[in-house]
Amino acid sequence: MLELWELRGKNDCRYSTFSWRTRLALLHKRLAFELRPVSASDKEAIRFSGQDKVPIIRDGARVVSDSWKIACFLEEQYPSRPSLFGGEVGRNLTQFFNLWADRELIPMLVPPLMLDVLACVEDKDAAHLRSRIEGIFKRKLEELSAERTKSLDQFRKRLAPVRKMISDTPFICGRNPAYADYIVFGALQWARVVSTEKMLQEDDILAPWFERVLDLYEGAGRRERSRQERMEQAA
Amino acid sequence: MLELWELRGKNDCRYSTFSWRTRLALLHKRLAFELRPVSASDKEAIRFSGQDKVPIIRDGARVVSDSWKIACFLEEQYPSRPSLFGGEVGRNLTQFFNLWADRELIPMLVPPLMLDVLACVEDKDAAHLRSRIEGIFKRKLEELSAERTKSLDQFRKRLAPVRKMISDTPFICGRNPAYADYIVFGALQWARVVSTEKMLQEDDILAPWFERVLDLYEGAGRRERSRQERMEQAA
Repeated sequence: MLELWELRGKNDCRYSTFSWRTRLALLHKRLAFELRPVSASDKEAIRFSGQDKVPIIRDGARVVSDSWKIACFLEEQYPSRPSLFGGEVGRNLTQFFNLWADRELIPMLVPPLMLDVLACVEDKDAAHLRSRIEGIFKRKLEELSAERTKSLDQFRKRLAPVRKMISDTPFICGRNPAYADYIVFGALQWARVVSTEKMLQEDDILAPWFERVLDLYEGAGRRERSRQERMEQAA
Repeated sequence: MLELWELRGKNDCRYSTFSWRTRLALLHKRLAFELRPVSASDKEAIRFSGQDKVPIIRDGARVVSDSWKIACFLEEQYPSRPSLFGGEVGRNLTQFFNLWADRELIPMLVPPLMLDVLACVEDKDAAHLRSRIEGIFKRKLEELSAERTKSLDQFRKRLAPVRKMISDTPFICGRNPAYADYIVFGALQWARVVSTEKMLQEDDILAPWFERVLDLYEGAGRRERSRQERMEQAA
C-alpha cells in the first residue's frame, strides 16, 4: 500500500497546502494509500527520504518527495489511471501553473495565515515554522502579518486568470478536475483548516468551485474539519 | 480558402505579435490560408469584422477576431487536425498561459520595442500606434522607452518558468510544439522583425528553442526577414 507523509497539527488537523495537492492526486488516480502524519519539527520521522519536507510518498521501494515530482511520478507509474495532466501538453502547462502558484499565489497567503498556522500546531512546531518562514521572508511574522489585508487583496486579484478558466467549465481543468485544480484547492484548503477568515469573497465564482472540489472523492477535502468547525466542537 | 488579416509595415514586414500566434496556429493545423496584410491605421479594411484589431480570420461564412478566440475556433472546427492544446486540460491551461503572456510578458516588450515599431511603419500608422499605446499606458512613448533596459530585464526574468518547461523537452508544450509555443514565439518574432536588439541573452536556453520554432513549417517564421536582414539588404 502507498504511504503519504503529511503535516499534523493540534487536534489531528492536516494543514499542509502541498500535501493536499498530493492527497487529491492520489485520490484522482484511485490509488489506495495510508496517511503518515508527522509534526513540522519532527525531522527524524522523515529522514529516510533524504530531505526534510513533506509531502513524501513511498510506493514499494520508491520514495519520492516534492509535490510536483510526486505528481509526475504518479502519472508515469500509473498511466492507465485517470490522468492528472491530460497528456504531455497538459503536463508541461501544469508545470507552468504549478510554478506560478508557488511563486505568485502561496506567498500571498503567508501574511494572512501564518499566525493562524502557529496557533494550530504544538509549541515546538510553532517555533520551527516561525524560524523557517522568517528565514525565507527575512522579516518577523508580526511584520508580515501587518500586511495581511493588502496581501489577501493581492491573492484575490492574482486569481483573475483562474476565474476566466472556470467561466466556461466547472473545473479549472475543464469538465473534470485535474492536477491544476488541486494546486489551487491546496491553497484554499490550507486557509480553511487553519483560519476562520474567508479567503474568497462570497460572490467569487471560485467559491462554488471550491465547494465542488471539497465534495470530490466522497468529500475527502470536506471531511477535514475547518478551523471554524474545530472551534465549534471544542466550545 | 481561409484568410488571415495581419499588420503590414514598411518593406512589407509583418510585425504583429498576435497575428504570428494565429499564423503558426494555422500552419500547425495544416490549413491552407491566404494572408491579407493591412496597415495599422486602415480600419476600413477590417470593418467587416465588427471590431478594429487584427488578427482576424475568415473561414467560409465565419469571421473570427482575437487570437485566443481564433485558436479555440480552429481547434473546434478542425478536431481531426493536429491539436493546438492537446485536449481539454491543455486547452484550459493554455488559456491561463495566454492570459499570463498578455499581462506579464507582452507589456514588458513595449518599452524596449515600441519606438522601433514606429520606425518600421508608415507615418500615419506610426501616429495611430503611438496614440493607442500612449492611451493604454497613459504615458509618452519616450518615457516608456527610457525604461527599456529595466523592462527587458523583467521580460527575461519572467520567462524563468518557461525555461523550466523546456529543460526536459525541446518545446514548451513537450516533444512537439503547440499553441503555448506560438504565444512565446509571437513575442520574440515581434522583436526580431522590428528591432536589432537581442531579447534573449546568448546562453539563454530559450535562444535555441526560438531557432527551432523559426524552422517549423518549412521555416515560415524564418522566411520573414528580421530588422537586421532588412537593413543589410537595403545597405
